[in-house]
Amino acid sequence: MPILSLQAARDLAEDALVRCGTARAAAASTARALVEAEADGLKGHGLSRLPAYAAQVRSGKVAGAAVPVVTRPRPGLIAVDAAHGFAYPALDAAVAGLAEAARAQGIAAAGIRRSHHCGAAGRPVEALAAEGLVALLFANTPAAMAPWGGSTAVFGTNPIAFACPLPDRPPIVVDLSLSKVARGSVMAARQRGEAIPEGWALDADGRPTTDPAAALKGTMVPLGDAKGTALALMVELLAAGLTGGRFAAEASSFLDAEGEPPGTGQLLIAIDAGAFGPGALERFGALAAAIDAQDGARLPGARRLALRVRAAAEGVDIPDALLSEIRALAAPDGAPREHRL
Amino acid sequence: MPILSLQAARDLAEDALVRCGTARAAAASTARALVEAEADGLKGHGLSRLPAYAAQVRSGKVAGAAVPVVTRPRPGLIAVDAAHGFAYPALDAAVAGLAEAARAQGIAAAGIRRSHHCGAAGRPVEALAAEGLVALLFANTPAAMAPWGGSTAVFGTNPIAFACPLPDRPPIVVDLSLSKVARGSVMAARQRGEAIPEGWALDADGRPTTDPAAALKGTMVPLGDAKGTALALMVELLAAGLTGGRFAAEASSFLDAEGEPPGTGQLLIAIDAGAFGPGALERFGALAAAIDAQDGARLPGARRLALRVRAAAEGVDIPDALLSEIRALAAPDGAPREHRL
Repeated sequence: MPILSLQAARDLAEDALVRCGTARAAAASTARALVEAEADGLKGHGLSRLPAYAAQVRSGKVAGAAVPVVTRPRPGLIAVDAAHGFAYPALDAAVAGLAEAARAQGIAAAGIRRSHHCGAAGRPVEALAAEGLVALLFANTPAAMAPWGGSTAVFGTNPIAFACPLPDRPPIVVDLSLSKVARGSVMAARQRGEAIPEGWALDADGRPTTDPAAALKGTMVPLGDAKGTALALMVELLAAGLTGGRFAAEASSFLDAEGEPPGTGQLLIAIDAGAFGPGALERFGALAAAIDAQDGARLPGARRLALRVRAAAEGVDIPDALLSEIRALAAPDGAPREHRL
Repeated sequence: MPILSLQAARDLAEDALVRCGTARAAAASTARALVEAEADGLKGHGLSRLPAYAAQVRSGKVAGAAVPVVTRPRPGLIAVDAAHGFAYPALDAAVAGLAEAARAQGIAAAGIRRSHHCGAAGRPVEALAAEGLVALLFANTPAAMAPWGGSTAVFGTNPIAFACPLPDRPPIVVDLSLSKVARGSVMAARQRGEAIPEGWALDADGRPTTDPAAALKGTMVPLGDAKGTALALMVELLAAGLTGGRFAAEASSFLDAEGEPPGTGQLLIAIDAGAFGPGALERFGALAAAIDAQDGARLPGARRLALRVRAAAEGVDIPDALLSEIRALAAPDGAPREHRL
């Protein structure tokens, strides 16, 4: 597979998004997020998304010219209207506002509405942890899970992310979706023509299925069964109900260019790590060290960080077909900016 | 089984706690919490706890005379030192402070340190939802779960609770611990001399076990496997690391009168439901109605509310042995306040 440096991958992705009608600043923010996810090995939130993103700008499902509008309804709150553009510029604005507000107030929240796919949910919270804040993110996504006992999807797979600074090492980052497995794993099984294990998904009548096509028409099984759907309900209410985002069942797909904008929501909460008194950072570090010291145990995100270091040194592998598709988007006239690659 | 009215059960529990050395106000708060849990059918957090609570006051593991100390380190933060008393007076103080702070700031958090068993985790968030706030609670508990891949417990079963107001009906309340099943279920199996199902717990060497005694010396399996331990780590960092509470591995048992005070922590976060704009309450209600309308589906807490209504009308059943034990605590001289029963 061809290998691109991170800078080359960012430039290429940015050019592709601009050529499809995305404003330069939004394209730069989106390209940065996709390449960071790619570098962390989170390929489902990486450059594989770019062709669908570009198609959504061209169809108007994503507003390419959108600029996030930030207001401050209360001292501890930041409201961000993503204006049906990509989520990343809105998330960047939320992170910048929260860093200042959380230090002053002790705690602050940012609610993002009229948003889109938030990508790797650990990114914005990791950025807040780099500012000395403990951070949470709740995001809703198009409908994929039914309430416990029901068969109609009213929740997305609804990620929760959390980050916490540590002394002298990168932050702890927790990033998980509330389905037992990612929906992408079902899509991949369908592409390979393979059955999925029992327990991953239900068909449209709420019955367990091993057929990936039936699963994609049905619903995903939550992690931890009833407890997982309770958490998905919590995320739906926080990320969409509270912020003014659209609920999962009202949101169009992040994956195709059809229909209205998804209009989903995200809620970020940031707390100053030192706000309840000194020594918190050292205590976070002590717990991390106690986990690292156990045979076989590791902190969440350890693999991601190792891949990131390697990608910074060696670049990222992009499958031929995907790279050709992105290059064609970036330079439809056949004149790619080769000096950047 | 004998049936007590809720008022009689509260008076009896309060008297028992006072006779063991608890200050009247703390005893009243604790008795109210235990009887509310009992009425909701949450017997593991109900009057069954009272004999152990009383023994802990007598041994000094719980400071009976403690009064929570509340400070306001930042506009959005309330710090509560539970002073090694019961958690309930500290939780009451946190709820009262948050209701005012969250309305003014949009969002506020209360961190409780030097605390104890928080009881039914849904109670304080439900109280905040009754004030028009969306609320979260994270609590750590004595060590019961290992990090993923490890075998030594460094996390408690660490409950997460969430509540959200609804128009014209009681709030949605989510209350779940992060172990696959409650530790109380393993204790109950041991008492009955029965094996536990595979998948509930690991022995002290980290191997799956069906022996409840081996399980109690080992660790509980988290809900959703690796994702559950990631959430338990998040709760440990928020509830104890941030607030100044003791980590799970440093905390003594909530169940016996031996050793130092547990000193665990709780973090509550409250957000004004209307803070990001009007209509949130109606949207919460619309999602709840969409779930209720599905065959077989129900909102979290529905069973609890039905039991509460019944308990208010009919009282609560208390097993003979437990009632005798509490009566003996309340009136060691053999002169119970029968007019209250």
